[in-house]
Amino acid sequence: MPQPPTAGSTADEVLAIALGKLAPRPDEVFADIGCGSGKVSIAASALAREVYAIDRRPEAIAWAREQARAAGSQNIRFLEGEAPGALAGLPAPDSAFIGGSGNLAAVIGALATRGTRRMVVSCVRLETLSTAISTMRDLGIFREALLVQVARTKDLAGGTMFVPANPVYLVIGGA
Amino acid sequence: MPQPPTAGSTADEVLAIALGKLAPRPDEVFADIGCGSGKVSIAASALAREVYAIDRRPEAIAWAREQARAAGSQNIRFLEGEAPGALAGLPAPDSAFIGGSGNLAAVIGALATRGTRRMVVSCVRLETLSTAISTMRDLGIFREALLVQVARTKDLAGGTMFVPANPVYLVIGGA
Amino acid sequence: MPQPPTAGSTADEVLAIALGKLAPRPDEVFADIGCGSGKVSIAASALAREVYAIDRRPEAIAWAREQARAAGSQNIRFLEGEAPGALAGLPAPDSAFIGGSGNLAAVIGALATRGTRRMVVSCVRLETLSTAISTMRDLGIFREALLVQVARTKDLAGGTMFVPANPVYLVIGGA
Amino acid sequence: MPQPPTAGSTADEVLAIALGKLAPRPDEVFADIGCGSGKVSIAASALAREVYAIDRRPEAIAWAREQARAAGSQNIRFLEGEAPGALAGLPAPDSAFIGGSGNLAAVIGALATRGTRRMVVSCVRLETLSTAISTMRDLGIFREALLVQVARTKDLAGGTMFVPANPVYLVIGGA
Repeated sequence: MPQPPTAGSTADEVLAIALGKLAPRPDEVFADIGCGSGKVSIAASALAREVYAIDRRPEAIAWAREQARAAGSQNIRFLEGEAPGALAGLPAPDSAFIGGSGNLAAVIGALATRGTRRMVVSCVRLETLSTAISTMRDLGIFREALLVQVARTKDLAGGTMFVPANPVYLVIGGA
Repeated sequence: MPQPPTAGSTADEVLAIALGKLAPRPDEVFADIGCGSGKVSIAASALAREVYAIDRRPEAIAWAREQARAAGSQNIRFLEGEAPGALAGLPAPDSAFIGGSGNLAAVIGALATRGTRRMVVSCVRLETLSTAISTMRDLGIFREALLVQVARTKDLAGGTMFVPANPVYLVIGGA
Repeated sequence: MPQPPTAGSTADEVLAIALGKLAPRPDEVFADIGCGSGKVSIAASALAREVYAIDRRPEAIAWAREQARAAGSQNIRFLEGEAPGALAGLPAPDSAFIGGSGNLAAVIGALATRGTRRMVVSCVRLETLSTAISTMRDLGIFREALLVQVARTKDLAGGTMFVPANPVYLVIGGA
Repeated sequence: MPQPPTAGSTADEVLAIALGKLAPRPDEVFADIGCGSGKVSIAASALAREVYAIDRRPEAIAWAREQARAAGSQNIRFLEGEAPGALAGLPAPDSAFIGGSGNLAAVIGALATRGTRRMVVSCVRLETLSTAISTMRDLGIFREALLVQVARTKDLAGGTMFVPANPVYLVIGGA
């Protein structure tokens, strides 16, 4: 039975912001690179014509496939492998969410070359942030990066305090 | 010619998170209370069957109506007046975004009584935050509040710095 | 043997900001109300002539006294009891840090009445924040409140991410 | 008459945290590299035996010197020039605050080599943050970096909102 992948899944709020930036349309193809739990793919599948869900971890693909089945998403193509290679031979995605990659600069470069018009890299590490920004700058497709911080209430001794989630960076590029 | 209302419009990222929480569906009615520029109404109109855009300022209604026309949104009903009174005689909304109100506790109470199942209050003032939380707690519909902070890059002396937008609170309630 | 009190102690960064605002001087008396671990008292004891460390929990007083002895602080007077009553009969403090109190409005009021010129309330709960601000506003001594958020690096998979501490509010008042 | 330098001065709260980390002592020498307005130097001069205030801009040195005179600080040595060269021939500082430098890696390296035991780099740009962290990591002196965010209240339409200052990074190193 599939198990959830170990790497944390994208928070609802970050997902909402990222999809708002990517704005996939009903006639478009969307790629979810490093799909992990499949959460982004399932959300995008309601908006795009087709979604490519890519992950190099077989257990992530198995889990995400199961989640998509449970959610009734029928337009997700699961690709086990490493981007950008795993995208070879497929029509270029119109927009892409990059939640994880061992090869970030190559992924951004391949997408830009093939004509992906909107992409968002989501990351928590400074080094990944720097790589994403500098790669997009070099390609002339950098638009902006966001630092997104969400804290949510919890009850404390009869009162209400805010507990912060980890800050997430979204690096936004487009042709 | 209509002019934009003076109160600030909802930031894209806050809008995306709020709509993600409200998740209006194609068979539902959505209310945008204190609609201001009409931005939330227009975004919701692509998801819901009908949107009520309510504002007590004639100039806001005129501006929002113009924006909706330009965006091609045809399922927004504009209501000039003060909520909750302006909603009288209409079917209760299934979900509601409350971006501004001179009468917040009464609005939340009326929505809850009439069966609105999901609501989000967006605010920047502490006093409004406290009112929203305590009113929802008293009604037994408080789910959580979020503190949302977004900073975006700008170029500085050949480098990249983050400039913060004002923090926004989203208070989320539901039956 | 004394044990540390259960309530969390003030973070170094919050302590530094609060002491910067209070700026105790060598000829002044400083009060640390809800002294907990004694950390604020010990830091203030290097700057002020005398420090009152007040806590209603005997185990907090015992622990703080032990910490002060270890730190070599000799000008701290430990007072087990509830403020403002525990301050009766003593010279009024010139400045005060209020890290915890079951009776916040009364404490602020008593300090203001007796002439404490600078005070900082440190809190994490919204309700405490509201009480501190509204009490100081009513007394005409409210200066400003700060929302302080500190995140610190930790290593993650060969990279560097920021992990946030809980947001803290500092409410600053003065005659 | 001296004018204030154009680059922004360190916020009070950031200064308080940085000095808390550096903890200059009465028998120590403190260096303020890129001293700008002189604010950090003046604050440190109350704690350290001697302060070196270094800036390559003559107008910054003139202004800082004037501010120090007004504040009564008599143990600040002003050095117009570029660090680390400007420190040549002087005893090594025990601790250093680096608020600005055109030559950050060289400054950190020179300080580490000469035995400065505690240093804090304050920056707002990502590129500077990355350089500071990687330089300190390479030297084996990296301790941690902080992301410091302070928002302060302002009155808004009879209520209280928080307005954020720009986020600041403090990179902390030590032997």
